[in-house]
Amino acid sequence: MSQHDAVEVITAKRDGGTLSDSQIDWVVDAYTRGDVADEQMSALAMAILLNGMEREEISRWTAAMIASGERMDFSALSRPTADKHSTGGVGDKITLPLAPLVAACGVAVPQLSGRGLGHTGGTLDKLESIPGWRAALSNDEMMRQLEEVGAVICAAGTGLAPADKKLYALRDVTGTVEAIPLIASSIMSKKIAEGTGSLVLDVKVGTGAFMKDLDRARELAETMVALGKDAGVRTTALLTDMSTPLGFTAGNAIEVAESVEVLAGGGPADVVELTVALAREMLAGAGVDDVDPADKLADGSAMDVWKKMIRAQDGDPDAALPTARESHVVTAPATGVLTRLDALAVGMAAWRLGAGRAKLGDAVQDGAGVVWHARPGDEVTEGQPLMTLLTDEPERFDRALASLEGGYDVEPAGSAYEPSPLVIDRVS
Amino acid sequence: MSQHDAVEVITAKRDGGTLSDSQIDWVVDAYTRGDVADEQMSALAMAILLNGMEREEISRWTAAMIASGERMDFSALSRPTADKHSTGGVGDKITLPLAPLVAACGVAVPQLSGRGLGHTGGTLDKLESIPGWRAALSNDEMMRQLEEVGAVICAAGTGLAPADKKLYALRDVTGTVEAIPLIASSIMSKKIAEGTGSLVLDVKVGTGAFMKDLDRARELAETMVALGKDAGVRTTALLTDMSTPLGFTAGNAIEVAESVEVLAGGGPADVVELTVALAREMLAGAGVDDVDPADKLADGSAMDVWKKMIRAQDGDPDAALPTARESHVVTAPATGVLTRLDALAVGMAAWRLGAGRAKLGDAVQDGAGVVWHARPGDEVTEGQPLMTLLTDEPERFDRALASLEGGYDVEPAGSAYEPSPLVIDRVS
Repeated sequence: MSQHDAVEVITAKRDGGTLSDSQIDWVVDAYTRGDVADEQMSALAMAILLNGMEREEISRWTAAMIASGERMDFSALSRPTADKHSTGGVGDKITLPLAPLVAACGVAVPQLSGRGLGHTGGTLDKLESIPGWRAALSNDEMMRQLEEVGAVICAAGTGLAPADKKLYALRDVTGTVEAIPLIASSIMSKKIAEGTGSLVLDVKVGTGAFMKDLDRARELAETMVALGKDAGVRTTALLTDMSTPLGFTAGNAIEVAESVEVLAGGGPADVVELTVALAREMLAGAGVDDVDPADKLADGSAMDVWKKMIRAQDGDPDAALPTARESHVVTAPATGVLTRLDALAVGMAAWRLGAGRAKLGDAVQDGAGVVWHARPGDEVTEGQPLMTLLTDEPERFDRALASLEGGYDVEPAGSAYEPSPLVIDRVS
Repeated sequence: MSQHDAVEVITAKRDGGTLSDSQIDWVVDAYTRGDVADEQMSALAMAILLNGMEREEISRWTAAMIASGERMDFSALSRPTADKHSTGGVGDKITLPLAPLVAACGVAVPQLSGRGLGHTGGTLDKLESIPGWRAALSNDEMMRQLEEVGAVICAAGTGLAPADKKLYALRDVTGTVEAIPLIASSIMSKKIAEGTGSLVLDVKVGTGAFMKDLDRARELAETMVALGKDAGVRTTALLTDMSTPLGFTAGNAIEVAESVEVLAGGGPADVVELTVALAREMLAGAGVDDVDPADKLADGSAMDVWKKMIRAQDGDPDAALPTARESHVVTAPATGVLTRLDALAVGMAAWRLGAGRAKLGDAVQDGAGVVWHARPGDEVTEGQPLMTLLTDEPERFDRALASLEGGYDVEPAGSAYEPSPLVIDRVS
């Protein structure tokens, strides 16, 4: 493996060349082992960001990151498996109802998740607001739960794609996060190493998403779908709107409560729509085409799986959820139609109220977040509650309110309002 | 100085923006202090390499590097000062006759020089082949010698532009050496910190030079001339050919001997031509326009300064120079005209014979190198000596001969041979 050196690989990409399989295998392995230094990898990452990568290069890079660690294997399960990944949004609690719903349809869902950073929440943070629930499972516990319950949402082990872990931390401090080849290979190396048979990607686009414009989101989706296929994982992607936050809540416990409403057959229309759309994709990817997931919400079987899934991880699905000690109501500034509720503004406010963290390792508040009482298109009356801000620490209200400034528009009744579609496109 | 952070500066340049004065001052200072990490600076260097810098940015970057260390001041001298910098070539001994020649014309020459790395030789390495000569002088010794002799060639102190020293080492291992803004600011920060009143740049172009093509060399020259002017240093540049090595020797002691021939009023025509051309530029830059440097070679006054300069640094200008223990003659493969003698091939051969070093700190051989007995345009006869390879270690001949393979052409007598001009252009 010593047939290359770092400067050779860096200059090849710097000068617009295509890296060979051998160069990619070498540089990823040598970086993981520490033989390629951080300052060399960051120069390479910047060259990749500015000069791009061919599909074959990204595929090989992804494979090399997978090869840097262990790879899970669910082929011994009696059911097919399907996994879902969201690029992250505000109010994005979809994984919570989705995993038990798909399991209720006969497909096992091994959902390895992360904690949140910045204004987008983390699935584990939300679930940890449930009394007793624990995110860390051994591989044996995970396999048993998948066989017995059909769904598991837990923390990803550190043995998966360690090269990605190291590279992600480097990119974060070197201005090289935004490279599509590196974003795509980071996501897909973890998802492929997790051993799922099929995968659905929810690629968010809009103010509250990492990808602000549709072209870049589509490029990311197409790149990831291609990587999944190259690795033998049936992969599709939905491009979905994240200019408006999902549902009526952004936080931890409040999003769990909203998810339970969906599992009970109710809940916000947009959350239901996206949950069912992603469930259909997952079922199709797993080869199950004779079940309508909407039925499994209606008949209570998704809720049954949810309760079993929470109990299997020591949580009490019937316990009261934590609530914030303090609240502050934002009222409608005028009478008319709410024409815009900006996902980034709401996400920043929830984060500043304590629902999210500024850096890895920070604690989050279970009860903190934002509840909005109207969605774009709804009529509002001056002075009526528009949003409720929740936190244990009232000194956080000021910064949260500042985040919300300019984050919503109320226009005169009768103003033209054109709702944008939630599912923008499908990539397969 | 904590008003910026590294990711902000990196992403600004990554996205094609222009860095502000404040961003540049901060990042250079913070990098020198270690508050900006190597992996952040290398990502920034790659972004600069690929996205470029405006003249104002390069000028500010240069000023920030100068501000990272001490700055010399020769304004107390009774004579104006002029300095010269060459971007490095094969057989480039010009500094040796040039510094005493310009001093003989009434301009003080504080020539801070470096050691060689790779196939281009270093001025200090050449002078160190003179018995007793020492490169390290204190600032006081340097000032006294400038006042009394008029010329000094010595090692640059470590206090000049420490940011450049740190950045250069980083660029070397991260594939970011080739960025013109960084090359120009590296050279000019040191030269400006050295405190000269005027500066002449010898920017080499051709196979044996760092810059292989004229457009890039011109861009570098124009960038450096602009930087000099921005810093108040009268600066001009000559673009000179380095496809053919200079003179008839590439090595250390053998180049000293050739320089002494020039100072004695003889020597190779090309070395004399370039020495006089650069001397004229230096004199003009220093405001001295009533002396013809050619006269000072002819009348022996340049030689007088040389001897004083060498003696002032404990060298014996009359001592016999070291010679290599072993030699190997390369003969002409055919009868005809030597139409090409490649500078890179000769430089690599001299390096492999022991005249240069592969890494900082390696020792060099005083007597090693290559002497060629014909220059392009000369007629040669099959079997006549074409080159003599010199080394103390005969096991080096094989690799040196391999370097020379394909490095020269002998074509039938009467073949068209078009000599290329030595001084290609002037930038001011």
